[in-house]
Amino acid sequence: MLIRDANAADWPAIWPFFRSVVQVGETYTYPQDIDEPTARELWMLRPPGRTVVAVDDSGTVLGSAKMNPNQTGNGAHIAGASFMVDPRYRRRGTARALGEHALAWARTEGYRGMQFNAVVESNTGAVALWQSLGFRIMTTIPEGFHHPTEGYVGLHIMYQPL
Amino acid sequence: MLIRDANAADWPAIWPFFRSVVQVGETYTYPQDIDEPTARELWMLRPPGRTVVAVDDSGTVLGSAKMNPNQTGNGAHIAGASFMVDPRYRRRGTARALGEHALAWARTEGYRGMQFNAVVESNTGAVALWQSLGFRIMTTIPEGFHHPTEGYVGLHIMYQPL
Repeated sequence: MLIRDANAADWPAIWPFFRSVVQVGETYTYPQDIDEPTARELWMLRPPGRTVVAVDDSGTVLGSAKMNPNQTGNGAHIAGASFMVDPRYRRRGTARALGEHALAWARTEGYRGMQFNAVVESNTGAVALWQSLGFRIMTTIPEGFHHPTEGYVGLHIMYQPL
Repeated sequence: MLIRDANAADWPAIWPFFRSVVQVGETYTYPQDIDEPTARELWMLRPPGRTVVAVDDSGTVLGSAKMNPNQTGNGAHIAGASFMVDPRYRRRGTARALGEHALAWARTEGYRGMQFNAVVESNTGAVALWQSLGFRIMTTIPEGFHHPTEGYVGLHIMYQPL
């Protein structure tokens, strides 16, 4: 698996799994019916943000991540990041590899921490993965997320210093 | 004091104190050198967001607030809000009145909670005000804010259910 900067030509490979994951509505706070231009605008970042893809040996895009300052101005030294893996290519360690890549990028760029604003409590696989990469649950907004089948669940704010 | 919806004609009254407060850089995570079009775009919200002004009996704008879903999609039932008071008109209860107004609006609109993502720890007046209005400090991102004179200080995430 290779992780490299995403470019405009990668978007047609990202959009189908981005759309399907967001439509399910269980793990992201994006609108479930998000349209393609809006999704592209929020995912394909320009500096100081960055978007990468994870590709396999044949060049197939397995997943993508975006990373960016979590706040602007005098809060811009804390990074944020988001991750999306193609459901067809799960259980290959793509999310972990993207997470490690994002943390390394943030350290290199001089960020002092990385914060996730909205990790869905019922997404236990993601929560465990981020914890294994050093993130702590700082707090949980009670009923912060309306899960399509589980109803209101908590929304974790996770963080680690870098 | 009257609190009413802001309209485009109010922006020339808001921008001077918005700029001066943001330039000082002690209380907001906006870029200290934010330009006028960017500031207008992020402050003057369209539905489902809303921007209001607090005006005195002569029609002078004392302060302003914006309120909006804190997340989109399945997180859009938690509101967020931001507040800005003209430094010339402090100590008149404007921030408290705007805060009460925003909470009442969020309840009326059916939000289930209100969250502040970035309350600067050293802004003790604001922290105490929000606590007196029912907000709790859910967590503090350590060194989440780079204060121009105090150095790195914490950034509170505050919340209350509605």
